Amino acid sequence: MNAMNTAVNVNETAQERKAPGRPRSAQADEAILDAVLEMLSSGQSVAAISIEAVAAKAGVGKATIYRRWPNKEALIIDAVAAMKGALPVPVGESVRDDLIMLVKANRSGKAKRYGKATVCLLPEFLKDEELHHMYQAVIEPRRDVMRGVLRRGIENGELRSDLDVELSLLMIQGPGMMQHMLNWNPSIREDGFAEALIDAFLRGAYSS
Amino acid sequence: MNAMNTAVNVNETAQERKAPGRPRSAQADEAILDAVLEMLSSGQSVAAISIEAVAAKAGVGKATIYRRWPNKEALIIDAVAAMKGALPVPVGESVRDDLIMLVKANRSGKAKRYGKATVCLLPEFLKDEELHHMYQAVIEPRRDVMRGVLRRGIENGELRSDLDVELSLLMIQGPGMMQHMLNWNPSIREDGFAEALIDAFLRGAYSS
Repeated sequence: MNAMNTAVNVNETAQERKAPGRPRSAQADEAILDAVLEMLSSGQSVAAISIEAVAAKAGVGKATIYRRWPNKEALIIDAVAAMKGALPVPVGESVRDDLIMLVKANRSGKAKRYGKATVCLLPEFLKDEELHHMYQAVIEPRRDVMRGVLRRGIENGELRSDLDVELSLLMIQGPGMMQHMLNWNPSIREDGFAEALIDAFLRGAYSS
Repeated sequence: MNAMNTAVNVNETAQERKAPGRPRSAQADEAILDAVLEMLSSGQSVAAISIEAVAAKAGVGKATIYRRWPNKEALIIDAVAAMKGALPVPVGESVRDDLIMLVKANRSGKAKRYGKATVCLLPEFLKDEELHHMYQAVIEPRRDVMRGVLRRGIENGELRSDLDVELSLLMIQGPGMMQHMLNWNPSIREDGFAEALIDAFLRGAYSS
């Protein structure tokens, strides 16, 4: 492990010289964030995730982590943000297409691979209000994107004028969370899930 | 705490003499199960919940717990079963009434008070498959009750013939889990939640 640490550190120093101001090592950053997500999604508590354990798993030195993140909480929230990926941008043509895209975005890439990380953070939020607030700051903008799609549909008459936006959010996000993260209904195939869910939701939400 | 332990133990001995075969002390049992639920729903991990800590919190002796439960896992699953309460029995007249009753059953009494206990068990299930199986054995019969209501509605023509029962289960149970347990949408009032959810679901599920 020490050999690898040294290699990464040398590499970082080279990068710093070449391009000051850029991330020290995008590869090391990703290895660190993936290590955190791997630990979280296997059920390890925040208390069990030490900077030392993350460094060992990612194959970097502890100093590499401390240079980039002020504390463990900030590192964990950054890992969740990396898992969620970039904020999705709806096309704005059909509510159905946009909602399917948003549901799929929650179920692909790192969100699919490390989906249980969020589940494993829930007990931590009960014990650490600050961590919960940091997490909300990551997910609230994503929920706002879905609110925007629904409000646009209400305004242009595609959706019922009396549609409850907050309840609709729960109806669209709750099933995926329950099924994908908890594996409670493995009988439902991943293929076509987003389309089936949104079509069932929209049958009751369309204005006509 | 010792004085209380002695009092409960004396009480139990008296009960045993009066009514052999009955639970040693229903009151002590409830105090023990409530102590477990209180600890779970405040975010304590299964590892942190020792029989000793439960006994101290419930005001009973450790022997009282060991007489009734073979191990911590059995105690935790019994606590979850106590929180869920008796299996609800649908009236069988209208799908709407039965579904509202089932959603309300998940959000009242101990399920309301200790609702976060389930959330806090989710990371444990990733680490302990046996505990997960024990939990599934508690909740699967409850999910079967809802499946039965939906299937009856499909058979008697009240619901669409092509309704996806498993997806419907997620659409009915996911929102409540997300909202009630995680407090993600406190703007949705508890009052009228079950009715609003079931009406939104049924708008897309009725056959007409």
